[in-house]
Amino acid sequence: MNAHNPRIEPPRLGEPYLLTPGPLTTSYAVKEAMLVDWGSWDGDFRAMTREMRDRLIALLGDGSDAFDCVPMQGSGTFSVEAMLASFIPKDGKALVLANGAYGLRAAQTLDYLGRDYQLLDKGDYLPPRGDEVAQILATDPAISHVVAIHCETSSGILNPVEEISEAVYAAGRKLLVDSMSAFGAIPLEASKIRYEAMVSSANKCIEGVPGFGFILARNSELEAAKGNSHSLSLDVHAQWAHMNKTGQWRFTPPTHVVAAFLEALRAHEAEGGVTGRGRRYIRNRDVMVSGMRELGFETLLDNRWLSPIIVTFFCPADPNFVFSRFYELMKDKGFIIYPGKLTMVDSFRVGCIGQMDEHVMRQVVVAARDSLREMDVAAATPPEAALQERAKLAS
Amino acid sequence: MNAHNPRIEPPRLGEPYLLTPGPLTTSYAVKEAMLVDWGSWDGDFRAMTREMRDRLIALLGDGSDAFDCVPMQGSGTFSVEAMLASFIPKDGKALVLANGAYGLRAAQTLDYLGRDYQLLDKGDYLPPRGDEVAQILATDPAISHVVAIHCETSSGILNPVEEISEAVYAAGRKLLVDSMSAFGAIPLEASKIRYEAMVSSANKCIEGVPGFGFILARNSELEAAKGNSHSLSLDVHAQWAHMNKTGQWRFTPPTHVVAAFLEALRAHEAEGGVTGRGRRYIRNRDVMVSGMRELGFETLLDNRWLSPIIVTFFCPADPNFVFSRFYELMKDKGFIIYPGKLTMVDSFRVGCIGQMDEHVMRQVVVAARDSLREMDVAAATPPEAALQERAKLAS
Ligand SMILES: Cc1ncc(COP(=O)(O)O)c(C=O)c1O
Ligand SMILES: Cc1ncc(COP(=O)(O)O)c(C=O)c1O
Repeated sequence: MNAHNPRIEPPRLGEPYLLTPGPLTTSYAVKEAMLVDWGSWDGDFRAMTREMRDRLIALLGDGSDAFDCVPMQGSGTFSVEAMLASFIPKDGKALVLANGAYGLRAAQTLDYLGRDYQLLDKGDYLPPRGDEVAQILATDPAISHVVAIHCETSSGILNPVEEISEAVYAAGRKLLVDSMSAFGAIPLEASKIRYEAMVSSANKCIEGVPGFGFILARNSELEAAKGNSHSLSLDVHAQWAHMNKTGQWRFTPPTHVVAAFLEALRAHEAEGGVTGRGRRYIRNRDVMVSGMRELGFETLLDNRWLSPIIVTFFCPADPNFVFSRFYELMKDKGFIIYPGKLTMVDSFRVGCIGQMDEHVMRQVVVAARDSLREMDVAAATPPEAALQERAKLAS
Repeated sequence: MNAHNPRIEPPRLGEPYLLTPGPLTTSYAVKEAMLVDWGSWDGDFRAMTREMRDRLIALLGDGSDAFDCVPMQGSGTFSVEAMLASFIPKDGKALVLANGAYGLRAAQTLDYLGRDYQLLDKGDYLPPRGDEVAQILATDPAISHVVAIHCETSSGILNPVEEISEAVYAAGRKLLVDSMSAFGAIPLEASKIRYEAMVSSANKCIEGVPGFGFILARNSELEAAKGNSHSLSLDVHAQWAHMNKTGQWRFTPPTHVVAAFLEALRAHEAEGGVTGRGRRYIRNRDVMVSGMRELGFETLLDNRWLSPIIVTFFCPADPNFVFSRFYELMKDKGFIIYPGKLTMVDSFRVGCIGQMDEHVMRQVVVAARDSLREMDVAAATPPEAALQERAKLAS
């Protein structure tokens, strides 16, 4: 099946593909790396932690020597919270750019932290633009930090972080990026886009299994973060200082997940790093989206904003279409898809990331076609309301 | 080798045994359960989460129906922090009973949280006793909660939680227990020891791999915890409410680690639950300690306080004994041991938990004997200062 890309292996034992934005389908080699128990204090494991951190820093390309890498136990949200609490000082103020669930979650995190912030809420998917950011920063000098979501996974939109970064630094403020679902496939080179820190996790575009996240931050910010954190566990400065002193994680690391991630990082390099990985995902998206459009499905976003991470489709207007049944029919055919997160209209999402290539994506389209037939859905065209909703983006 | 206990398997591929208090040596079946990718939204994974929670609640035995189980991403410390922040109200006050690193860490966590507390610091290992607790509670009516460490892993002492619990509830206060390294091998039955909540993690006596912890708490406390947490990620109430409503974790779960843990829970039941697991560990400890004593090593604690989890030995007085070399020699022989955590005298620790039985423990003693010979250490007797330190416990 994967004759064109021998590095991509199908899942074993009739396992479905996970067309979800992480956890996702990982290679067998990644999972096999978990068949060993490691002592977290032992030198062998310390060397693994070191290699992992070095590889992650290197992914920032030119300019990466100003950065260090701090892995953090827990899910990606834990790392986002750790980043916000550690880098926005207690008397700082954030501007949170939201166009979906993860932007809103960053704002909610600041509510917990009791840190001051202003929210630019663009709704379900409209992108926050550089000029909007510039305008807000001009009117509110108290804002010290801007928080942006790289790929807003709830719609799949790729937000314009370059223009946002330019607006932020033109106004003399600092940028923090949640690049959870984009890092490793979409460039975020330190020399091309300026930011103080970014966060991602093991189970996204590097194709590891879930269990920890990581923060890539400027050394100067890591130094300055001392005393900012509201939480012992999520204290980025403390984790960083301890790790640089001892080579160890402050608290028990998810050793097996780290071993899997290291294997994933090596495979990522073998595939050509961020460029190679991104190329495969773009091809996945293009093949899948054009196949789905041929079936009559419509994407929420037009091509300019479609990320190669995950794509939102409107549910068909046909009353025979029921998402829960579509989900089960797709699962029976070996594909796990994801419900949508739009508030106004029904939708579902299909991920492009993980151990799969365009051949798999063609099968996804075939499975969708067959599932529609089994449900007796004549056309996949969305309801008028969905198209009206979408028209907002153009206007 | 393990003819007497066919369920215990040696590690493969020349891997060393981890004589450490978690991460520890797990069975191959536990690790093999990680060879599948699970969709965290999918019904199959939700069923795994449900089974895991039910099995954990059942380990509390009679009285467990008043409790619910809330798994929490991150290491054990994350779950301790989550428990403290969620159950001690912002205007509450804690009494922290410390006799080692983990008690002190609970106090440090409360510093981060800005919650009021009093610390009873008994030093490196002396146990906090029921009458001391009663006395402090009598003099400080502001104390609402007492925080106790079940097995203080830094020395290996098994603290007297029964008498502590009696003192706490006699004074009308509430008990929170860090049973990280004890739960699953040392009974903590809801009908026998009263407490509001306890915490443990996947990679201790249940013999899973590291990646998350869990809180077992009374439903009434979980209800009342709303709004207490300082952290979005570590909010026990929010995790509980969401999980009971949707069957899902709030944020991405460490799916593979959960699959491994479920396998570990099934093996735990097959071994006879808490009683069976505890019996093997006690035998591990007894065989290992008596063998080490024959070599001349002395334990920090006398038998009354020795847990079947991990045992602290004094380093020999002989100047030829160098811990880092002893560590490497033991590792070469297939055993990873652990440095000590005593502040006054040099020590090391040997764990009794994980996939190993008395036959393995005999080999540990042989390896220690041979390592001493290779280092040219004539006798394993500790320095006089160590014995004087220990005499404090008797007095
Ligand atoms: C952009 C973004 N931020 C944050 C998160 C949260 O990560 P986690 O679910 O691991 O907590 C996600 C997860 O998909 C994400 O895509
Ligand atoms: C009693 C106790 N509490 C807390 C912890 C911290 O757990 P972790 O290292 O997983 O954060 C440990 C770890 O060994 C422990 O033994």
